[in-house]
Order: sequence, then structure tokens, then C-alpha cells
Amino acid sequence: MRIAIAGYGNLGRGVEAAVTNAPDMELVGIFTRRDPASVSVATDTPVLAWEDLPSYVGKVDVVVLCGGSATDLPVQTPELAKLFCVVDSFDTHANIPAHFANVDAASREAGTLGVISCGWDPGLFSLARLYASAVLPNGADYTFWGRGVSQGHSDAIRRIPGVVDARQYTVPVPEAVEAARSGSNPTLTTREKHTRECFVVAEEGADLEVIRQAIVTMPNYFSDYDTTVTFISKEELDANHAGLPHGGTVIRSGRTGLADEFADTIEFSLQLDSNPYFTGSVLACVARAAYRLHEQGKVGACTMLDIPPAMLSPLSAEELRAHLM
Amino acid sequence: MRIAIAGYGNLGRGVEAAVTNAPDMELVGIFTRRDPASVSVATDTPVLAWEDLPSYVGKVDVVVLCGGSATDLPVQTPELAKLFCVVDSFDTHANIPAHFANVDAASREAGTLGVISCGWDPGLFSLARLYASAVLPNGADYTFWGRGVSQGHSDAIRRIPGVVDARQYTVPVPEAVEAARSGSNPTLTTREKHTRECFVVAEEGADLEVIRQAIVTMPNYFSDYDTTVTFISKEELDANHAGLPHGGTVIRSGRTGLADEFADTIEFSLQLDSNPYFTGSVLACVARAAYRLHEQGKVGACTMLDIPPAMLSPLSAEELRAHLM
Repeated sequence: MRIAIAGYGNLGRGVEAAVTNAPDMELVGIFTRRDPASVSVATDTPVLAWEDLPSYVGKVDVVVLCGGSATDLPVQTPELAKLFCVVDSFDTHANIPAHFANVDAASREAGTLGVISCGWDPGLFSLARLYASAVLPNGADYTFWGRGVSQGHSDAIRRIPGVVDARQYTVPVPEAVEAARSGSNPTLTTREKHTRECFVVAEEGADLEVIRQAIVTMPNYFSDYDTTVTFISKEELDANHAGLPHGGTVIRSGRTGLADEFADTIEFSLQLDSNPYFTGSVLACVARAAYRLHEQGKVGACTMLDIPPAMLSPLSAEELRAHLM
Repeated sequence: MRIAIAGYGNLGRGVEAAVTNAPDMELVGIFTRRDPASVSVATDTPVLAWEDLPSYVGKVDVVVLCGGSATDLPVQTPELAKLFCVVDSFDTHANIPAHFANVDAASREAGTLGVISCGWDPGLFSLARLYASAVLPNGADYTFWGRGVSQGHSDAIRRIPGVVDARQYTVPVPEAVEAARSGSNPTLTTREKHTRECFVVAEEGADLEVIRQAIVTMPNYFSDYDTTVTFISKEELDANHAGLPHGGTVIRSGRTGLADEFADTIEFSLQLDSNPYFTGSVLACVARAAYRLHEQGKVGACTMLDIPPAMLSPLSAEELRAHLM
């Protein structure tokens, strides 16, 4: 199957690697809104201008969109769904229904398939929540993120005057994770579930206490959390905080039995050296499923919750039953 | 949707509880090969004779088979698939392809749907292996079972002369679990992965050393493991080993990046007070999906790997996208 990437940042590099390493996929091109001559990619894949995308209809089976959820994907995914089967990683949870409706309308009209909100959360974690709640309807689930770098929170710190660079780690509170596992179905506040650790490079002469206050009181991002701020040098940031590790855990505890007499716990967790390369790997296998589903005649928008799992694998149904069941 | 249970042991009780507690399912009857008058069930569900099953065509949407994998299901599932949509928990991994073929032939001819090998392994653990291997094709996976009661191994001990009763726990070796998590992709032998703990009630005057030797040298069941045998009284067995707890962990570690430069670990684990009640809960939500898939026109055999996850949930696609993605 012939794949194209639309947008080339960290996530695009992740998809590039995963598609290149997949035996059943061919990476036709990487489309960028920048000047293609200015973009150097990790493989020998052609770098092409975004405006040329329409001329690739019939030459590309699935376009994997690698833009951001704030402003890129809400526009790009419905737009490209008019031309191609598409896969995106739209991750603004509250806006998923609206994004779904837009992509659904565009892709139904065009006879294409659009799989939105793929990755690990939303994505694999959504699947974990779904399977666990279907099997244990009488229960509660808890999602913990980290320890890992939140790029959105790191960016928010970088916008504070006097800040040169920053890296923010989201860290689950161990006691909260244990409480979720215990089966006691505790009510946990935002503050009880995660702490936030900030490593900040300040301009020379900046008032560090002013920066610290600006961070810990920032609404939505930090004010509801116990936040620590550590000022470090640019050298230390580059040496010890260059990566984008992440991960997390979905825990559901619930009860079975006519009178709820048995307690069970289901847990799904990830530990990732590189968030964008892992997310790119998810997008690549969803692209495979999108191609297959569209071949079967499916059109419109869907999510990973709608994809028969076997369609994600390069193995045949017979191989899966014989070796993996 | 109208559900029937075929076979009423521990697993049948688990399905009975899960279906009774589901708001969108009605439990029409429990069919037994014993004299129905001799079977008392936990709810006010009618207990009916196995021979009456054909007269329930049109009155039952899905039959959940709760017999054993050794001799019951290989015969019963294809037989009932000629009349009804069916769900079973066939768990003899090596024979899944043959069982699939038999159920597929019967259900295709009848225009029914048969979902085989549902539960947690095969079942949720198969799904965990599939998702993890699709996302991290360059990696290795490890399945650990326990700590939990293996009913097959307990039965094997009970068949030894001089044994009154027994309970066998399968226990993962902590060092092996850590090695699997480490990302080093270790090669682990059967003996390195699990130990087996046996609690045995012997007849008065029995030669305990002879029983112990018979257990630890038993081929297939114990000879490849480090096995401990503890002789206890019937009272202690009944007091401390009456439950059927189980659980386990699927771990896949793999690498992403063009040159495999990033290491990731995916882990899915279960901790269950009651193996049969949890397995019954899985079968109940698969019965929901079987009903819906058949309504959409799907016939033939399939497994949980073929079921779009959203179909397992009582929630609508809109609710799932709004609240669970």
C-alpha cells in the first residue's frame, strides 16, 4: 500500500521510520507547507509541496497527517479527506466529536475513509478504557500519564518572559496509582494524581522567583498541580533533557459476580523512549487498517474503536489464529 | 438481546451473573445435559433440557457455550452454530485453527455467526499481543500467567492415587518478568518463567514422597517446572484455597526509529478474584458484539481479533467518542 506523510515534524519522522520499516508499505512522498528544498528528511523519500497533493490522487492510498491538533488538523484532515483516505492523531479530547463530524462529512461525500485520533491517548489508551469497561461495567477507571515530557506544557513555559528554554515532566503520584490498583475506587483530584516537574533555562539576570510564580500559578497548565521548578543551564538541559520519553497507565478496577462479590483489576501501561516515534508507529499500522477497510468498502470517519484489531497486523488472519491467539 | 447459556458449571455461573447485570440483555434460559430438575441456578432463569435447544430457534439471539475445551466445545460449538449465533471460550491454543474451521463451516451454512476462543487467554491477552506486535513489529512478547489456580493442573494432581484433593498455583518468576520488561528481549525457558505450587490433601497413610514424586515428574504438567508440593489438611484447603483467583501479564518490548534507536515497553495485566466470573463477563460482552455483527450481516466464525472494539460496549459510538476516547 502506498503511503504519504503530510507535515514533517517529530511525528512525521516517527511515521517515516515506521512506514519505511514495514514490509508491506511504500512511502511515496512527504508533503510539506515549507519550501520542499529546505526540508531534509531521514530517508530518500521525495519531499513535495503541499499544493501538489491533489495531483497524487490515484498514486497514494493513505495520507497520514502529522500536523498539530490546535490549528492544523481541524482544517487539514477534512480537506485531505476529500481526496484521500486519511489517518490523523487529533488529540484534543473535548473536540473529538466535532472533528469526527467534519471528517465524516468530507469523507462520505468523497467515498474515502478517515481514521481520526490515533496514537496512544487518544488511541491505545482509549482501547484499554473501552475493553476494560465493556468487561467490567461495574467499576471505575483511572488514566495516569508519565513520567514523560509534555510538549504543550514545555511550550507554555517557554512563552514566559525571561525563559530561554524549558522541559516539563508529568509525573504520576505513586500513592494515587496504588490507590487506583487497590480496587477501592477512590475519588482522586487532579492534584492527587499527577505532579509537574519543570526544568527551566532562564535569561541571564532574569528574576527567577518571578518566573517560578508565573509557572506555578498558570491556570489550566499548572495551578491545579503541585509543581516544582528547577533552574538549570542550557548545557544541562541539552545533555539531560533532550529526549521526548513518555508513557502512562490505564487502570480499571471493577467487580464481577451477581452480588459484586469478586474484585478484578485490569491494567494497560506504556513506557516509551520516544513519544513521537511510538505515536508514528501507531499511525503506520492504522494506515494499514484504513487501506484494508476502504478496500472492503468502508467510507466515512471512524476511530481505532471501530477497527477490527486483526486489520492492524501485517499477518494474515490464519497466521494470527495459529500463532498469536 | 436474548441470551441462552449452554452448560452450567463455574463458567456458566459467571455468564449468568454478567448477563443478568447487563441492562441490554435478557437471559432466556440455561440449558443443561443433566436433569434440569436437579440443577439449581443462582437466578430465577428457567433451567431447560439440552434437547430442547432446537425449539428455541427464533427465541434466542446468542447461545453462550460454557462447556470444557477438551471434549465438549469441539462437538457442541459447531453443532449449535447450525441453529444459533454462538460464543465459546475454546482455549486449547494448538487446536484453534481446526476448531475455527469446524465452526466456520457450520455457521456459514446456517447463516449464523460463531465467535470462538473468547476469555482472557485466549481473548484479552490475544488482543494485547496483537495490538502490541502491530505497533512494535520489531520486538518480542512474553506472557506470564498467575499467580493463580490452574484447574487443569489441580485436576491432574487429583488423579494421582492417594490424593483426596489438590490446588495448584501457577506463579510467574519475578526475575523473568523484570527481564521481559527490561527491553533486553531475553530468551526464557519454561522453567525460568513460572514455578508451580501444589497444595495437596493426601489419604491417611498414603506415602507422601511417592505422591510428591508422581507430581514433580509428571510430563507436560510439572516436569519442566520447579514445583513445590505442600501437604495440608482438607480443612486448610477448604479454608484457604477455595477460590479460583488468577491473572497474568503480557509484556512486549520493542524498538522504534529508523535505526531502532528507541526502546518501548507495552504491558497488559489482569488480577482476578475469580477466573470463571471474569471469563463469563468477557463472554457476555462478546455475545453483545456477536448479536450486533450478525445484525449487520456477518456470518461464519471469527475471534475477538475480528470484532470492532466499540461493538463490545453497551454505549453508543457517539457516547464512546465523547466520553471514552
